[in-house]
Amino acid sequence: MAIAHLAILAPGLLGASVARAARARGLAETITVWSRRAETRAALVGQPWLDQVVETPEAAVARASLVVLAAPVDKIIELDQRLAPHLAPHAIVTDVGSVKGPICAAGVRHAPARSRGAVFIGSHPMAGSEKTGWEHGTPDLFEGRVCFVTPEPDCPAEASRTLAEFWRGLGSTVVTTTPSRHDEIVAHISHLPQAIATSLAVTLANKDGQWRHLAGNGLRDTSRIAASDATMWVEIFQHNRDSVLHALDAFEQSLAGLRRAIEQGDWHDVRTRLETGKLWRDGFQPRP
Amino acid sequence: MAIAHLAILAPGLLGASVARAARARGLAETITVWSRRAETRAALVGQPWLDQVVETPEAAVARASLVVLAAPVDKIIELDQRLAPHLAPHAIVTDVGSVKGPICAAGVRHAPARSRGAVFIGSHPMAGSEKTGWEHGTPDLFEGRVCFVTPEPDCPAEASRTLAEFWRGLGSTVVTTTPSRHDEIVAHISHLPQAIATSLAVTLANKDGQWRHLAGNGLRDTSRIAASDATMWVEIFQHNRDSVLHALDAFEQSLAGLRRAIEQGDWHDVRTRLETGKLWRDGFQPRP
Repeated sequence: MAIAHLAILAPGLLGASVARAARARGLAETITVWSRRAETRAALVGQPWLDQVVETPEAAVARASLVVLAAPVDKIIELDQRLAPHLAPHAIVTDVGSVKGPICAAGVRHAPARSRGAVFIGSHPMAGSEKTGWEHGTPDLFEGRVCFVTPEPDCPAEASRTLAEFWRGLGSTVVTTTPSRHDEIVAHISHLPQAIATSLAVTLANKDGQWRHLAGNGLRDTSRIAASDATMWVEIFQHNRDSVLHALDAFEQSLAGLRRAIEQGDWHDVRTRLETGKLWRDGFQPRP
Repeated sequence: MAIAHLAILAPGLLGASVARAARARGLAETITVWSRRAETRAALVGQPWLDQVVETPEAAVARASLVVLAAPVDKIIELDQRLAPHLAPHAIVTDVGSVKGPICAAGVRHAPARSRGAVFIGSHPMAGSEKTGWEHGTPDLFEGRVCFVTPEPDCPAEASRTLAEFWRGLGSTVVTTTPSRHDEIVAHISHLPQAIATSLAVTLANKDGQWRHLAGNGLRDTSRIAASDATMWVEIFQHNRDSVLHALDAFEQSLAGLRRAIEQGDWHDVRTRLETGKLWRDGFQPRP
């Protein structure tokens, strides 16, 4: 079932990909886009994957049945508050932020200001790239990827279903969970790998700069996401601090265990760790 | 200039790839292969990338001008000692092991037993795969990859040049350095990433097993080499213990620094780390 009117606010890579995917798959009758900067709005005019570019966020949401706030976390919270009284009745507002706790908590705080029947439900598509910016959006970014949907307990089931249906329409596998459980999971499967890749890159940046050119694919893959956008990641570490520290604790303990085993020459323990890791990694599902 | 007679002993993924690449590129007139297990020898007979399969390592090296010991580290040292008196005059013996210090030190110890003018020179092609076994060998495995060549100071320059030429012929970029410098470099660019990927995988193996199916490409790439062969890695950590511990120290310090910055809310420090890592990673040369 197509969304009558989709509004994408502050599109970067993810927001533009939502619009492109929705257009390519016929999931939205009308697509309206607003961007904060005038020059971005000018560049967006005439893109084939949208119908109109508007001057204000209020104008963007006025008739929208689904609103996607594609801004950074702080701005999502600001926009949600600012737009609450301007939503159409029964509008669903969602976002694409990597942290859900603080955003969904703000969504609850803003509920009284929201128009009749309109709701906020968090989303987090596990898709992205080292590239940023709407120019890099692609219609297949969400295909075969997980998208978390994190409704509050009092959220109307129908709104939650409509949002899940939308993400499935874009090709995602939807996982519905609570905001705090989401934040715990992504701290381990996304934020921890980023902290590790960055720290590995920093370690090697302190060594001979030529070494990186000697590496095989192991270092190349292990460090790939160190090239991610710094601004986005400062924000994620800020907003998911406790869960990230918890995941870092677990990893530091695991690494210290391997280090101790190597130091003490306990090769049985080293082997067990390598085998446990291999078993876990071999259990990855192949991408469709 | 083609090698008159190439002998590959105990071919796994790397040994078979050397033979296939040498055959495909016309770099060896005759290719002789020996494998320890009778059933492997039987399976190898008739492979188009070799000329003969022989029953003993002594028979394999009897007329070889270049001998590649493709066995695990312990076995390389054993084979080098055993074959020293059976080499052809001026034969070059090399290996494909991931650690060079102990292997090259053994090569020096075995020198007096070696036939006239024959030498041992270590090699380490930075190529591989999570797959193991000669069946997975490919003729293009070394293309665009670094291959370390680690001659001892008293090694005749001509032998060293011939070996480097051979690896270049297989498509590799040759880096000549000392065994101990090699071991320090790979501890950082190869063994450290393995220890990290394994420890990340072990951390997540202790959590909900379903989480891995929710991950994006970040975790997928960061953990990929956790699927590597455990036996090979126990051996590498054993033989390069001191350098690996040194690299682990540096990484643990870097990670603890990031953790402390997140804990203390020092977002300027967090940003600096992310930017340093990004700068380093952006400096990777694209693969040819």
